[in-house]
Amino acid sequence: MRAEIMTAGNQTFQKQANLSLVLRRIREHGMISRVELSRILGLKKSTVTNIIAELMDRGIVEQRKEGEASSMGGRKPVYLGIRPGIAGILGLEIELGFYRAVYLDLSGNRLWSGYAEVPPLPLEHMFDYIIQHIQKDIEATGVPPAGIGVAVPGSVDLEQGKIIESVTFKLNDFDFAGKISSRYSIPVFLENDTNCGAWGELWRRNDEKVNFLYLLIRFHFHNLEKTEKPGVGLGLVINGQVYYGSSFRAGELGSNLWDEEGTEYLHMSSEELLRIKEDPRLMEKFLEALFRKLSESFSILDPSEVFLAGDVDEYRDSIPRVLERLKDDSWFGNPRQREKISFSKGGEMEMPFGAACMVLERLYSIPQLGSSRGRIHIDWEHVFEIPETGASHMLGTV
Amino acid sequence: MRAEIMTAGNQTFQKQANLSLVLRRIREHGMISRVELSRILGLKKSTVTNIIAELMDRGIVEQRKEGEASSMGGRKPVYLGIRPGIAGILGLEIELGFYRAVYLDLSGNRLWSGYAEVPPLPLEHMFDYIIQHIQKDIEATGVPPAGIGVAVPGSVDLEQGKIIESVTFKLNDFDFAGKISSRYSIPVFLENDTNCGAWGELWRRNDEKVNFLYLLIRFHFHNLEKTEKPGVGLGLVINGQVYYGSSFRAGELGSNLWDEEGTEYLHMSSEELLRIKEDPRLMEKFLEALFRKLSESFSILDPSEVFLAGDVDEYRDSIPRVLERLKDDSWFGNPRQREKISFSKGGEMEMPFGAACMVLERLYSIPQLGSSRGRIHIDWEHVFEIPETGASHMLGTV
Repeated sequence: MRAEIMTAGNQTFQKQANLSLVLRRIREHGMISRVELSRILGLKKSTVTNIIAELMDRGIVEQRKEGEASSMGGRKPVYLGIRPGIAGILGLEIELGFYRAVYLDLSGNRLWSGYAEVPPLPLEHMFDYIIQHIQKDIEATGVPPAGIGVAVPGSVDLEQGKIIESVTFKLNDFDFAGKISSRYSIPVFLENDTNCGAWGELWRRNDEKVNFLYLLIRFHFHNLEKTEKPGVGLGLVINGQVYYGSSFRAGELGSNLWDEEGTEYLHMSSEELLRIKEDPRLMEKFLEALFRKLSESFSILDPSEVFLAGDVDEYRDSIPRVLERLKDDSWFGNPRQREKISFSKGGEMEMPFGAACMVLERLYSIPQLGSSRGRIHIDWEHVFEIPETGASHMLGTV
Repeated sequence: MRAEIMTAGNQTFQKQANLSLVLRRIREHGMISRVELSRILGLKKSTVTNIIAELMDRGIVEQRKEGEASSMGGRKPVYLGIRPGIAGILGLEIELGFYRAVYLDLSGNRLWSGYAEVPPLPLEHMFDYIIQHIQKDIEATGVPPAGIGVAVPGSVDLEQGKIIESVTFKLNDFDFAGKISSRYSIPVFLENDTNCGAWGELWRRNDEKVNFLYLLIRFHFHNLEKTEKPGVGLGLVINGQVYYGSSFRAGELGSNLWDEEGTEYLHMSSEELLRIKEDPRLMEKFLEALFRKLSESFSILDPSEVFLAGDVDEYRDSIPRVLERLKDDSWFGNPRQREKISFSKGGEMEMPFGAACMVLERLYSIPQLGSSRGRIHIDWEHVFEIPETGASHMLGTV
């Protein structure tokens, strides 16, 4: 990780750029030959051959199998893939009272996953507790970790690793990275939970220019009676990038979902909200009001897809009835737009999966000219340096 | 203009990239020395010296003046600037019944501007008519044109040079570029008028990562009685780029500003809309309703600035009263957000200025790895090739 302005004449840039381009295409295609890489990337065959030689030497890329010789004869193409087991990325979702975790290899395959309750501790100690708790499981995979992504509810300054505000954890301007980083030997990246969901979809979509919206709806049924209120967040993916806005608050809905006294949400009382789980008509009322609120923004953002995620997933049957009630709406009433709505495929492990995908996407990101890669980038150099001492050393000194 | 995938190992890429980086920094700084360029870009001094030598040879860059020698002694730095008069960009706004035009040099300085009425013709013939009409004025500047940007009301597929839909011109899926390009020897770029306004602000802001919104409000007072209805458009600039959405319709407000019968706009009758010009209370009512409609989107987009433009410019005094009425709104009622609202500085030549800036921004854009530059890019190679035969030959064969 370094903050260096990238220029084309800069040797670091050229090397990193070609490496990233080659690795990204291999990961996109799963398996691909040197000839195809050279054709797709417009690089000379000798350049590709040299890069692949280095990547094989480093143990990142391996030969998979030989293809068919072309009808013209000649050598059979050899297909290349990312070697499983070279390194893993841990994705964590930390919520009030529990965590979810997944451990992915560099192709995004799940090596392990887990869920457990966590005692009420300050956030950084919850993090330490979780890492200690899962250390043995990570070690058992035999794959050394190269990075950790952490999903938390609240607005997050990704570059500084700070929580700007989290109602759930009652935190403001909280320097998570500062408290954590000195004690861990691998990079830890913090991200808002809704955005993690968007990163997960982005990884699955694998499209560098896509525009989509990720609508996370959570009723917090487990502790609505206590302190939690329903939460709605929107993740914005614009030109293949998660969009953060000017103050890392993009996707936050206006606070006027709650009325001034904080007793009504989208014109529904706390009592009604509590009964949403049992009464599908209340769920439909809630979704109709929410969608009407979002209609203008959807129109303005012109997404190619809208993913619904969170607790709403259990109420899929309600959606057609809700859309029927929205027939008069300029966005939701338009069949061409309605077709764009689908449910996220992530399931309940979506947040930790997305947190890990955020780190993977950054690893496979293509360096851009004239911009600083900043703290939120993770270089392949870092993966290269992972010692062959197994998983146990990598999670730091806790 | 070529559609070539950019890779770092690609020689075209490296040359274009360094050229673009150097020219962009010179234009940003107005004047800058080789030493500063080398420091800012992280390029070797010899690389910068070679690039500057070529650019001076081509007549694009010139030496301006010598700076002070540093306290350490040594050679005085020589400041470089873009040479005025090497080439110009024409920006046109074509509306029903009139056009506005500006002619800018490559630093964005205005060389000429004009306005005139145009007879009702098919759009491509209006374009020919305007070019014929202003040809002498362009020639008189002595600066040969290198490109034309055209602002039109309606949704535009920038890459194809097509009008997707224009209510004003009653056009659908109209291949403007196809009808025009064979007859003009310099590239012509079509763009939506609101987005042109955003391009103008982007040029003035000169910030590669800025996020802002450009809200264009037009009452079409001159022909409201006939066919035109008030028009509101939003230009979105995200990470320093105009955002188009998945179907070039980003920034389009839901059609529900008009009621189902098309007789009321934001709950105001056609009669009220006609009287807006005379009655400031109606203007305030209109703006309050519009801002309430946009509040949720502004919250979701988290812009650093919001520019108001168009006819609303004449009613600046109304804004404080409108904001007072919006005290209860979650976005407009927040003093931190209200501070972000200001009036566009473009004035009535904003649209043609922005249309020219769109072409300039593309000329100064930095090529990005792994992406095709596509039809909407304009290369410096094109500027280099402008023959020294003056302005007259460049506008084509009309």
